[in-house]
This record gives sequence, structure tokens and C-alpha cells, in this order.
Amino acid sequence: MDSLTKIEDLGKPRVVIVGGGFAGLELARELRHAPVQVVLIDRQNFHAFQPLLYQVATAGLAADSIVSPFRKILDEQENFYFRMAEVQSVDTEQHLLETSIGLLRYDYLVLATGATSNFFGDAQMQQHAITLKSVADAIELRNTVLANFEQALQLGDMEQLNSLLDFVIVGGGPTGVEIAGALSELRTHVFPRDYRELDFKQMDIHLIQSGPDLLKGMSKEASEKSLEYLKQFGVQVWLNRRVKSYDGYTVTLNTGEKLITRTLIWAAGVTGSPISGLRPESLLPSNRYQVDEYNQVAGYDNIFAIGDIAAMRSEAYPDGHPMVAQPALQQGKLLAHNITQHLAGRPRQPFRYDDKGSMATIGRNHAVADIKLFGREYHLGGLLAWLAWSIVHVLSLVSFRNRLAVFLNWSWSYLSYDKGLRSIIGGARISQPREQPHEEKAIT
Amino acid sequence: MDSLTKIEDLGKPRVVIVGGGFAGLELARELRHAPVQVVLIDRQNFHAFQPLLYQVATAGLAADSIVSPFRKILDEQENFYFRMAEVQSVDTEQHLLETSIGLLRYDYLVLATGATSNFFGDAQMQQHAITLKSVADAIELRNTVLANFEQALQLGDMEQLNSLLDFVIVGGGPTGVEIAGALSELRTHVFPRDYRELDFKQMDIHLIQSGPDLLKGMSKEASEKSLEYLKQFGVQVWLNRRVKSYDGYTVTLNTGEKLITRTLIWAAGVTGSPISGLRPESLLPSNRYQVDEYNQVAGYDNIFAIGDIAAMRSEAYPDGHPMVAQPALQQGKLLAHNITQHLAGRPRQPFRYDDKGSMATIGRNHAVADIKLFGREYHLGGLLAWLAWSIVHVLSLVSFRNRLAVFLNWSWSYLSYDKGLRSIIGGARISQPREQPHEEKAIT
Repeated sequence: MDSLTKIEDLGKPRVVIVGGGFAGLELARELRHAPVQVVLIDRQNFHAFQPLLYQVATAGLAADSIVSPFRKILDEQENFYFRMAEVQSVDTEQHLLETSIGLLRYDYLVLATGATSNFFGDAQMQQHAITLKSVADAIELRNTVLANFEQALQLGDMEQLNSLLDFVIVGGGPTGVEIAGALSELRTHVFPRDYRELDFKQMDIHLIQSGPDLLKGMSKEASEKSLEYLKQFGVQVWLNRRVKSYDGYTVTLNTGEKLITRTLIWAAGVTGSPISGLRPESLLPSNRYQVDEYNQVAGYDNIFAIGDIAAMRSEAYPDGHPMVAQPALQQGKLLAHNITQHLAGRPRQPFRYDDKGSMATIGRNHAVADIKLFGREYHLGGLLAWLAWSIVHVLSLVSFRNRLAVFLNWSWSYLSYDKGLRSIIGGARISQPREQPHEEKAIT
Repeated sequence: MDSLTKIEDLGKPRVVIVGGGFAGLELARELRHAPVQVVLIDRQNFHAFQPLLYQVATAGLAADSIVSPFRKILDEQENFYFRMAEVQSVDTEQHLLETSIGLLRYDYLVLATGATSNFFGDAQMQQHAITLKSVADAIELRNTVLANFEQALQLGDMEQLNSLLDFVIVGGGPTGVEIAGALSELRTHVFPRDYRELDFKQMDIHLIQSGPDLLKGMSKEASEKSLEYLKQFGVQVWLNRRVKSYDGYTVTLNTGEKLITRTLIWAAGVTGSPISGLRPESLLPSNRYQVDEYNQVAGYDNIFAIGDIAAMRSEAYPDGHPMVAQPALQQGKLLAHNITQHLAGRPRQPFRYDDKGSMATIGRNHAVADIKLFGREYHLGGLLAWLAWSIVHVLSLVSFRNRLAVFLNWSWSYLSYDKGLRSIIGGARISQPREQPHEEKAIT
């Protein structure tokens, strides 16, 4: 396009990166000194810090505190170009990307499209459940929770009331555990002051986990501690249960048990977000692209995949690396190095995942952390893990501005036991009950 | 309704306030020690600080920094109840308010519904123009401005390009002047870094004012200085012009001149937002309720109107007070006092507007202020007025949290020449050109 042909680095090879999550953004930044033209394409004009989406959803942080516009992040990177567009497909023969704003030629194509919620084919679940994969999701969930309580004030029927006050979270991974914990903090410290007319003994938070342990993938210690903390905070944890169906009102478990809620939060699994045009053989059943240890997509010379969308299978990781920030960042960084090496005719370096451990926070002063240092693994809990989690997350934010905003917000919330972002700005999902008519009472 | 009949202050008279802007919120807070039950009804669950909406619209502040949830503000006020609802009409005989969540009985009804944009019956204008009366408006305008530039990168045709880069603001009051100034700051300091491929000489900002002076209602000095500052910042000011029509692409002025833009911002006038059910004789042609000097609506004993929706006509203010924050706050405060007096059988106090002056900011270090102190009026300009404006606005914000957030943001922006809120979160208005097809160029 015109705006890309004007530039001085026209003769340089063009690296097109699809998706500006952890992997794509890291790659773009690490290519800053490389003799290439970097074009980043994303549907949004900002990078979102996904690990803190749950705090936006629970009124703890403003969306603006965890997002950074790409143009701002890469302001001073001479070889960087951003285009806000949707990718439709790729023509691997012609080296062309079809997008919502036209065709784009590439020399290297890097897929960093991430993952999306996996409903395992349950269309009814997909229609009624709320997910937490984007900033828009997080804002919708926050607004829905708040609107539920506003609506609950008008109801007398107990089942109707409970359908609004109760929350069901499906999936006991970090996201599920963190939302459950954050909702329980709202129940204890915030909502009773806001809604004095409601009885918060009626508000139940259910967390459903298909297996016997929470935080699968973390240590036994972390699983047990997180369960203990959640129980301490009054979250009802249902282990070894699966959701059979949800119609927007009644949740039916595989054991036959039923729960009533108008708000089911789906944190139960993800699947890759591939693009069309690549040969089907390159895509694994998990919807992730099969890549070699240089993140090269099987069957292509100049197409790479990094982050959640890439499955680099090895003995240690037979299904690919965990779909979290660390491998994404490390792959983005190494690919930048390898592209530079390749252009210079020097050998590339294979990827080795340096797992630094993982963490999840449950609530005020309560977190769990498995930290890997010098070949040993340490299991932390309680206040120490919570401090570690807080520090790591503040420092991992992309801009100094966001770090400051989050730090101030957290300090404030910690001291005041408050969560300040309780304005309903934007839409909420007001689901009507399925089985019984919603009965509004006269308020005279 | 149940939740309102449970309370201990059931026997007390109920004051129902419709609308939580400056007037309604001030009244609710000032009634905190009165022997009444206070019920505030609003469509939103938050108070928005309207004078800074234009900064949300121009990426200077996050929406969350200028809003506060009502429940949070009035957390500790025992006699306060909030309901998020739309008011449909009032039955003045039965003393009942019909709302989207049922019927509500009142003893005193206070209308504080404010004002809305006045398009003077031009439906086409109403369809295509962007207004700036709510937080949703401000977010939409911000997103539209940013999306325009993203879209402009793909265009080659000069007229098409200019339709996206140019902005037309109708109305030379404080809002119009402030938006024009803020857009010119973005043009000078922010956008050229973000959109290096665009030529910002192409970006024109037009401000159209029907009369010979900007900031009508302020002093001659303020009008002249604001014009001088805007010209200095490169804003094209069209005095003595009216917009005859706008079809989403072409603006036609009454002088026959034409401007091309896909973004016309309507800041040209407001009209009251009355509710149905009151006798038509109480409503003036301006759509404001005619009130006496106790803010009592003509023809009713127990219905009051305060703020923009009230027109208290006097010799000094033949059309009622200016529709700005100060009279609203003062009327809210006095009405609280008068309701308390009335309940105690003591005489009420008539309203006298204490005009402390007015201010408008044009940009970095440039503002104008007419300040009334001890019966004298002082005219400030430049840095001094800008500092006064900044301090007054920070201190006027409702919560300490917001004051801190705005103060930090402004300090940051001032030092960095940056406006950080450039993420497109939520919807934009993508208007297609009317006369020529939008031509997307291939970007190979």
C-alpha cells in the first residue's frame, strides 16, 4: 500500500506479524535493530495484558490501566508499522495476506494469533456463557455482575434472586481460581456496603473443576493451598465435576446436580485461533500449528508461529508448551534473533523453554507460587506468594504509565479494602431466566 | 418495593430525585442529616463530571477518572437509596413515579434530569453528528477520531483522506472551544508520532460559531483571547456562520461555503430533558420547567426542578440561569436546606445565584477566565488562567481517587506532551462517505 511503499526501508525484507499479544509484540520490539521492515497487524489498536483481565472484570482495575496502544509502545522504533485490520486468509504461494483493508505482501509471515475459548462444540453453552479472553469480555463481565445486583434489588422471589446473586465459574485453572477469589473479596468487603438492602449470605460462588485438583500443571502444594484458601474465602469448589449443559439459567452437572445462575463464566479451556490458507496438515487437533524448534510452521520456509497458536512438541512437552505468557515471550524474543541470524547467513538457535514457574493469586494476602530458581523449585504460599505475584505482575506491564496506575490502584485497594471501578460503562449481558418469568415488583 | 419498605426510616417523608448530575447529587448529599428518605434514580449507576468529558473524547483522560459510582459516593449516608432505572412518567395526583423497574411513591419529587443536545429539529444532523453529553458519547468520539486515522492510512484519494483527517466542530461555547484546542494539541504533539506515514498539514480543525464572538456569556477579553489562542494553535474559526446541512460527508454553511468531514461534533446548543406527566403549562419553550425562587415547579406543591432542567426567570436572568455546574450545585444545596426548613415548619430561603465567574481552557498553558471576587471581575488569560482552570477542575472532582488520577494524568501529559488514552475500547462511528465510494487500496 502507498503508506508502506513511501518508506526508506523499502528494499528490506518485510516481516508481517499477525497478532500483538505477548509473542507478537515481543517479536516486533526485538526486531528494532534488525534490517527488516516490521508490520504488525491486529484487530485492536492496543496490546492487552491478559493476566490481569480478571481484575478488570471484578472492578479492581480500569481497562485503561492494562492496555497500551501499539503505536505508543513502538513510537520510536523506526522500522515499525502498525495496521489495524482483520486477517482473512493467506496465499502462501504468492506470499500475500488478505486482510480487511486489502492485500499485504510478506517476506516472513509470523502467526501470533493466540487462542480463544474452547466450548468443545456446545453451541448453547457458547451462547450463554461469558468468557474472559479480551478487554471487551472483561468489561462485559464487570458490567453484568454490577447490573445483576441492581436488578436483584427489585426481586422478592428467592430463586430469581439467587439466579442473580450466584456465580458459577467453570474451570479451576489460574483464571477460574482468580475470578472466584476476586468475587469473594467483593462479597466480603465491597458489595455489602453498596447494596445494604441485600443479604449477602445469599450470594454463592461456585467453582467447577473437571479433575481432582485445582491449578493443574502447578505443584501439589499449590493445588492444595489454593483449594484451602478458596474454601476459607467461602467459595464452593466442586471437584471431579463437568458441566453437562447450561441454558442461561440452570447449570446441570454430569453428576446430575443442578445450580441456578444467570452468570456462568467459562474458563475451562482454550483452542488455537488459526487463519485460513495454510495446509491442513500443519494444524494439530488442538488448532495449534505444528512448529519445529525454530518456530517454523511445518511445510513452509518463511512462515512461523509463536505463542499460544504454536505447538512445539518435544519429549518434555508432548502437546507443546503451556499456553501462557512465558513461552510466548521467549519464542518472540528468540525468533527475532533467528530472523536476524538467518538474514546474515548465520546459524539459528533452537528454542529451549526456560520455565521460571507459575503463580496464581486467590485474594488479599493469599496466593500460591511455584518458583524455579537455579534448577530448584520453591513452593510459596500466603503473603509471600501474594507479594511475589504482585511485584511480578506490576513489573511485567508494558508501560511505566500502566505500572504506576496499577501500583497506585492496588495500594489504594489494599489499604481501603475497596475496589473502585464500579461504574457500568458500556454494555452488560442481561440474560433473562429461562424457566420462570422474570417478575418485577412494584416499588411503591 | 420490598427493599425500600424494610428500612428503619420508613415513616419519614420520601424525597425522590430524578437524575444524579451536579444538582441531583448535591441535593442527595446535602440531605444526609435531614429526617427524610432520599431515593436517587438515574439511568447510569455513576455520576459523570461533565466539564471534563471533552478530555475523555480527546484521549487525555480515562473515562474511569471522571466518573464515580453513586453507591460509592454515598456509601456512608444512612438515609440514601439508589435505583438504576429509566423514569417513564409521573402521576402527580397519586404522587407516583413510573419507572422501568416499577412504581415509586414520593412525598417530594425533584427533577434534576438535565439537558440534552438541541438539533433544532434537523433529523439528518441528529443522525450524523456526534454529541458530547455523556460518557458513552465521549468514548465514541475518541474511538471515532482514532479509527479515522487508522482508516486514513489506506487511502490515496485526497478528498477521501481529508474527509477523515478534518474535523468540524459546531458551536463556539466552552465545549466547542475546548475540543478544538484539544484536537490541535493532538495534531501537534501526539498524532505525528503515531501516524508517521500521514501528512498532518492535511488535518484541519474547523470551529463554527453562529455569532461574532466565541464563548458568548464570558467577557469580551475572554472571547478575544480564546480566538487569538485558537488561531495560534491553527484552528480555523468561522464566525457568523451557521451550518445549514450535514449529510455525514459534506457540511454546508448558510453562506454557501462547504466543508468535507466524516466527523462533525455538535456542541451548538442544549435543550431541557423533561419527563412526561406534568402539566404542559409548567414547561417553557426551552424545555425547561418554570420554577419559582424556591425551585418549585409552577403549579405543584411538592415537585421541584433544579439544575439545567429548571428555568428560574428573573430580571438578571430573563431566560433562567446559565446551564452550567455552578447554579446546579447551588440550587441542589439550597433545596436540601429548604426541604429541611419546610419539614420543620420554618421559612424557606429564596435562591440567589452567586456567580463566581467562568473559565475555558484552549490548550497547554492557554486558558481564559473571568473570575468574580468580592464584587469585582478579573480577566485572566494564558498560563495563569490555565493554572486556575486546572486547579479548580481537579478540586471539583467528586472523589479523592479521581482527583489523584486526574492530577497524575495531567502532570504526566504536561511533562511528556503526550495523551496516553489512545486505545480504541468500545465502538466507533465509522461513517461512510456519501458522495463517493470509499475506495480501499491494495496494500501490497
